[in-house]
Formats: sequence, structure tokens, C-alpha cells
Amino acid sequence: MAEELKVLRTWSSPFGLRVVYALKMKGLEYETILEDIKNKSDLLLEYNPVYKRIPVLVHNGKPICESLVILEYIDDTWKQCPLLPQHPYDKAMARFWAKFGDEKVFPSLKSALISQGKEQEECVATAIGNLKCIEELLKGKKFFGGDTIGYLDLAFGWMANIISIMEEIADIKFLNAEIFPLISEWINNFSAHPMIKEFWPPRDRMIEKLTAMREPYLKKVA
Amino acid sequence: MAEELKVLRTWSSPFGLRVVYALKMKGLEYETILEDIKNKSDLLLEYNPVYKRIPVLVHNGKPICESLVILEYIDDTWKQCPLLPQHPYDKAMARFWAKFGDEKVFPSLKSALISQGKEQEECVATAIGNLKCIEELLKGKKFFGGDTIGYLDLAFGWMANIISIMEEIADIKFLNAEIFPLISEWINNFSAHPMIKEFWPPRDRMIEKLTAMREPYLKKVA
Repeated sequence: MAEELKVLRTWSSPFGLRVVYALKMKGLEYETILEDIKNKSDLLLEYNPVYKRIPVLVHNGKPICESLVILEYIDDTWKQCPLLPQHPYDKAMARFWAKFGDEKVFPSLKSALISQGKEQEECVATAIGNLKCIEELLKGKKFFGGDTIGYLDLAFGWMANIISIMEEIADIKFLNAEIFPLISEWINNFSAHPMIKEFWPPRDRMIEKLTAMREPYLKKVA
Repeated sequence: MAEELKVLRTWSSPFGLRVVYALKMKGLEYETILEDIKNKSDLLLEYNPVYKRIPVLVHNGKPICESLVILEYIDDTWKQCPLLPQHPYDKAMARFWAKFGDEKVFPSLKSALISQGKEQEECVATAIGNLKCIEELLKGKKFFGGDTIGYLDLAFGWMANIISIMEEIADIKFLNAEIFPLISEWINNFSAHPMIKEFWPPRDRMIEKLTAMREPYLKKVA
């Protein structure tokens, strides 16, 4: 049976990009359905009635939601180019850190982006503390997945795309290359990968988007 | 090599119980290390420096943290009595709903427990909305796992243990048996299972614990 794969995502979401990269790594063809989160399609609401958010992978008509769940589904379904490590302990570590990335690291950087003054300083300090845990994971490795890009690289992909943009917009520094030599090197390696580059959201549009996202929070304080 | 398994948990935590039940289902022997969350042991801080919380499973000296990650680890390591469904799509659905349970359902019930008046009414309505999604999953099934207890039953185990206690303490109703016949029946089936019953935290101590947990929030409003 011919596989029918559709990805509902936005042009910018790093969570949507996780799915795109995973499908590309597996060598799978798919159709992209670009969503406008301010005007969600009936299809998105039908496929993800619980969270009403992208990404959704639709495989032969059946929807799968939540990007990390989708990555596991892709890896469980197509065995070529494994994304997750093979050993149960390494697998558990990858899952643990991916969860940590979504629950702690990403929100801590976002909080720093939308705050100001003393509060922002505290948020930056928290974010840096979280990033130090991530730095440790790269010791002796090119990618989080080892020699090649794996599940955890895709889960942390947003770091390569978004951190320097956040730094520019809010005039803050998360990643001092002397404190974070391994993440800095990883960002270069990851974003230079042809497959990753192909779908990289344009920097100017990302700056515009994150600046607009930040705006209401600044007004609230002013 | 003889397996050495230790579980760091508290007497009451439903997240710790997930691990206990999974090990029991697999027929594995383990040592329990009971933690006092007000006075965390050096061992806990060493094994889970990131979150500093239970449960931790220690397998031959190596720690695994986060209860849903631990369940997957147990299922990946010991193949007897599978916890997760075998088909990738069913597996993805189980992971999706377990995440929904932890991120949405549990917090919505907790918010209702610690709020009052109009705010509490809204929290109860949200919680009931979330529970309706769960009710749907049980259509045509005895357990979330089908005929037997599986991963999603363990992930939702807290519902069987805690909902009626929350209802009693806060004088609210989440689970009207007419609206939730399937969850109500599941709670009976799940909690009557000999393996589950063996580790059931005593109701009077749970009432005491949750009442004390609720106390500071009530004072804040008064």
C-alpha cells in the first residue's frame, strides 16, 4: 500500500520542523499543509481537537499529535536510520532530556525574552543553568545522537534556530561561546547539515515574528 | 548478572506507584527506598540532580528519572507482559494520552482542589471537560490497555486513588457515575486488582496529606 503522509505545521514552528526533519532522515515523501495559527483550519481542529495545535502527522488518514510522540511514531514505524538510540538506557536518557528541553529549557529562554530588568536577569540566569545541563550531554560527541543527528538533536533543534535570534531581539546573552563551547559547535554542525538547512526558516522573518510575539509583554510593563 | 533494582519513592506518590506496579507486572524483585520530600536524601539528590524528585528507578547502579520515562525503560528492558501496545499507532496514542493526563488532567483536578468559589467552579468544569476525553478512551474496553492493565492504566492510576479523596476534601464532584460510567467502572476494576491493592496508600493518611497540602492555599485567600 502506498503510504500517504501529511504534515500540518507552520512555516516557523520548531516543533513542526522536528517532524519534517525526521521524515527527511527516513527518506519519506510527504505533503506539507501550512497552517496559520491565528486562523486554524478545520482540518487541524478535526485532527487535534484536544490541543488544537500543530504539528500533526497524518499517516494514511490517521492523525498523530505532539511532536515528541510523532518522532517516536516515525521511528517505530520506519526502521531505517534510527532516531532513538538502541539501548534501553540510552533511549531513556534521550527521552528524559527531550522532556527537560520542552518543559524547562525552552520555557526558561522564552521567559527571558518576554521579561525585563531584574526579572529578566533572573530568567537569563535560570536559562543558562538549564543550558549547562545540555552542554554536559555533548561531551565527547559531535551530535546529541553521537556521530549523526538523532532524536535528541531534532528535539533540541529549536536551540540552533532560535537562541541567537532571542539574544539579538532582547539584547541578552545566553550562549557565551567560552562557557558553552560544545553547544556553540553543535549549533554550527547542526545548522550546516544540508537536510536541516533546506528547511531553515528565514532569519529576518523569524526576527519579525519573535519581536511581534514579545511586543504585548513589553507594553504590559510600560 | 543478578539484576539490582531500587525504587526511590514516597509512600503516597502516584508517580512512584506507577513504577512499583510496572515492576510487579513484570515479576521483578526490587528494593524500596522511601523518601521524605521535606527532607530529601543525598541519594535522591545524587540520582536526580535535575528535578530532585521521586520516583527514581536505579538499575544496576544507573538512575532513570521521570515516571513515564521509567515505564518505557522497564518495558524496553523486560519484554514479558508488555505494558505498551505493540502497534506503533496504538503506542503513539498511549503516549499522547499519558502526556495529556500529566499535563492537563492532573493539574486541572489539583487546581480545583486548591481553589474556592467561582474560580473553583471554573476549575471543576475544566477538569470535567478533560475527564470526558478520558471517558471516550474506555469505550468497549475494560482497561485502557484492553483486557488487561497496561501502560496507560498505570499512567492514569492516580485517578483511581485520588479523585474520590479530592472530592471528599473539597466537597466537589468530578465523577458523576451517570456522566462517567466507564471511568467509574475502570476505577472499580483497577483498584480491585490484587497487585494494585497491595500497594494502595491508606485512605485516611491520603486524606490527611491532601488536606494539609490544600491548607496554605485556603489561608492565602482568607
